[in-house]
Amino acid sequence: MAGSWARLTESSAAVRFIDTNLRGSGQVMLQDNPLTGLLFLIGIGWSAVVSGSPQLAIGAPVGLVVATCTAIGLGVDRTALRSGLFGYNGMLVGMALSIYLAANPLFWAYLVVGAGISVVVMLAMVNIAKTWGVPVLTAPFVLTTWLMLLGSYNFAAISLADLPPPALPSIHVASAMPLDSLALVDAALFGVSQVFFIGNAITGVIFLLALLVSSRWAAAYALAGTVLAIAVAQTLGANSDAIAAGLFGFSPVLTAIAIGTMFDTPRPRVVFYVAAATIFTVITQAALNSALMPLGIPVLTAPFVAVTWLFLLPLRKLVL
Amino acid sequence: MAGSWARLTESSAAVRFIDTNLRGSGQVMLQDNPLTGLLFLIGIGWSAVVSGSPQLAIGAPVGLVVATCTAIGLGVDRTALRSGLFGYNGMLVGMALSIYLAANPLFWAYLVVGAGISVVVMLAMVNIAKTWGVPVLTAPFVLTTWLMLLGSYNFAAISLADLPPPALPSIHVASAMPLDSLALVDAALFGVSQVFFIGNAITGVIFLLALLVSSRWAAAYALAGTVLAIAVAQTLGANSDAIAAGLFGFSPVLTAIAIGTMFDTPRPRVVFYVAAATIFTVITQAALNSALMPLGIPVLTAPFVAVTWLFLLPLRKLVL
Amino acid sequence: MAGSWARLTESSAAVRFIDTNLRGSGQVMLQDNPLTGLLFLIGIGWSAVVSGSPQLAIGAPVGLVVATCTAIGLGVDRTALRSGLFGYNGMLVGMALSIYLAANPLFWAYLVVGAGISVVVMLAMVNIAKTWGVPVLTAPFVLTTWLMLLGSYNFAAISLADLPPPALPSIHVASAMPLDSLALVDAALFGVSQVFFIGNAITGVIFLLALLVSSRWAAAYALAGTVLAIAVAQTLGANSDAIAAGLFGFSPVLTAIAIGTMFDTPRPRVVFYVAAATIFTVITQAALNSALMPLGIPVLTAPFVAVTWLFLLPLRKLVL
Repeated sequence: MAGSWARLTESSAAVRFIDTNLRGSGQVMLQDNPLTGLLFLIGIGWSAVVSGSPQLAIGAPVGLVVATCTAIGLGVDRTALRSGLFGYNGMLVGMALSIYLAANPLFWAYLVVGAGISVVVMLAMVNIAKTWGVPVLTAPFVLTTWLMLLGSYNFAAISLADLPPPALPSIHVASAMPLDSLALVDAALFGVSQVFFIGNAITGVIFLLALLVSSRWAAAYALAGTVLAIAVAQTLGANSDAIAAGLFGFSPVLTAIAIGTMFDTPRPRVVFYVAAATIFTVITQAALNSALMPLGIPVLTAPFVAVTWLFLLPLRKLVL
Repeated sequence: MAGSWARLTESSAAVRFIDTNLRGSGQVMLQDNPLTGLLFLIGIGWSAVVSGSPQLAIGAPVGLVVATCTAIGLGVDRTALRSGLFGYNGMLVGMALSIYLAANPLFWAYLVVGAGISVVVMLAMVNIAKTWGVPVLTAPFVLTTWLMLLGSYNFAAISLADLPPPALPSIHVASAMPLDSLALVDAALFGVSQVFFIGNAITGVIFLLALLVSSRWAAAYALAGTVLAIAVAQTLGANSDAIAAGLFGFSPVLTAIAIGTMFDTPRPRVVFYVAAATIFTVITQAALNSALMPLGIPVLTAPFVAVTWLFLLPLRKLVL
Repeated sequence: MAGSWARLTESSAAVRFIDTNLRGSGQVMLQDNPLTGLLFLIGIGWSAVVSGSPQLAIGAPVGLVVATCTAIGLGVDRTALRSGLFGYNGMLVGMALSIYLAANPLFWAYLVVGAGISVVVMLAMVNIAKTWGVPVLTAPFVLTTWLMLLGSYNFAAISLADLPPPALPSIHVASAMPLDSLALVDAALFGVSQVFFIGNAITGVIFLLALLVSSRWAAAYALAGTVLAIAVAQTLGANSDAIAAGLFGFSPVLTAIAIGTMFDTPRPRVVFYVAAATIFTVITQAALNSALMPLGIPVLTAPFVAVTWLFLLPLRKLVL
């Protein structure tokens, strides 16, 4: 089936365009695989149906297609384009704005601008990051979304939907309670689904399957990442509600995939290195949660980006 | 006339020094042209006379000359020096501190330190930015001024003159009302004059003329930038008073000049690219307004710097 | 004696390990010298004895040894390791967390994670900074400690010991009073000892001696830096209590050492350049004090790092 799809992408520009977008979806979790991307969209669709809130299921494909079209219009490098590298940030911008802003006609124009700009930001960041041979990960999405959200505070025509107001960081208001087994399983699956702003166990399972069809190691690292993140957050006494909602899991999941799949085989030293990065992502998640409170913006996947850069940059000098 | 001035700069060290400083003034809007710089100073002087507040008309030349002399003392690259590249940041530091701090004897020492330091910051940033072939724009001015202002909070001998106190970002307190035609024309001209912290229509006209004598495209992009910025800010429902005062215009004006004049001819694709950058500068201006509220410092031209970098960095890879 | 110690480090792995750690201690003030590092530890021990609070005297060696062992485990570059370059950040992390967090069993695990992570951050930053030929200084310590402290706000199992709560920056609440001669001498020595979070005159003297055994210029610049910092802070009207406690001195001391010892001889132009950097470090210290208030985290040596980078980066182009 994969073979006939590959032939179709060569013969049909329309299929090629669809394939590019599906790979863009897959790249949200660093997979250059159209089936993975399709399963991600199906997982998003499932969550929209059961939750009755269709925003994500609209915002995600709109942002994805806008970004891909912008990249084509700008004449970006063809190989990178076909791998979906100019779609995933736009898709994430589309989802984030759909969740945090209220939909109205002008909102859609705002989303289109954000998704399009994410391609320019991607190109700019790639030019900088290649100096050190590291990928930009989801940094273009994070920067673009932060600016679009902060900007909206000053625009009467764009309304916030679901963000706590700016506040000074609070200290130790966390209520740390143990979670029962069922809640822990849910938390682990939510940690995976929250990469797409979704707290839904079935969606989490679909996402793990989506990783599995692309790379068994990616799926294994994702699962290990979400479990380890919960263990660390519980041990340190983080807020139980946040843990249960998977909010301490999505960045560590991405860190574990990004660093783990850099290596051919998970030797013990590699596993230790990935575990250290995953643990530090939980601490960085907590740190950025506090640091961004005065601005009222969410951390998004900034902890994943920051910690993954910190752990990828030494690899040119180290032999693990 | 230009020819005899050029001959004078060769024969007389004093004229050469004046020429270097005038080019430094011109570089505030990226023009390596002494007449442009002279007209900028005239525009500042005009505003000082009609407003009865001479601070800018003193702070601007003091900062400019201090920076130029510091650069000469440090033995910087001669070609860059003669193009005015070591003067404009000091001039802007001089103006910003003159406006935001109260004048007293120690204030002048503080201004001299700031203007001199701007040269070191310029040299440091040039060394970093050349890695990617981008200009540092007004980043040295922005960083130096932010540090000097934030530092002053802790110095009893240096008083703030005109800055709102630090506060958490407010959301949607904007009063968005339509502006009448006259107010719109004023707003457009203020957008140009606010590059120099001035809200004065005649000064705005003088500044446009100053650009015209150097480059008709620079003048055209400046005018288009301020008009487009007003249209975007109005559409999104930004605060009418801020729009009317030109406060949403000065960074987009600089973005439009900086990116527009990178190209020989304004082909449709170029115009579209410049327009996208200008629009995103308005959003970034709003975003940084919110982001800096907890620190109580003004955004200065940071939106221009950030967005222009984001749109210049991809150009090595794109053929527009 | 130095010769027999050098021979011992060659013949004995245990002595080599001790030597590496002592050099790591010395690198806190940029000295690749085991005796300097030993005297630093003695100065810390003295302060622990007279103040009756042993945290630093435990946290410092624990952080140091953890970081050195992590670096060995990661297989870092041998020459850099033996110079102590992978120890000093861990030692500083160990001290900072010991002071700002309350000790409990989990705290020690948290400290070990922080000290270990500082090595990864060091490797990452070295890879970036070498692009421009500048050292990373104490930036890995600063970044790691900020994240560990900010993260702790959300962890019920890790308690803050001694940090003012997050607050908006206050303006001009400084009480600027003249200090008498004795207080000034104390302030100057405290400025040196505060590099290690200690306000103790004897410890300050021990630290100056520690510098002297490594480099007379380092000791001279340290002394000149702390004196100049007090003069600048007093002139600008900074808070007298903070000046008296040496809190305006520790970053300028490091700036003066770092930039001053880049040059073979302190020619007048060099002295002027180092003095400018030292003065600007005082202003940057005040600025970052304000800027970090909303997050409730201390500036640590960030002013030293920022200003030293700004003054080192131009040196590739300038001949002073």
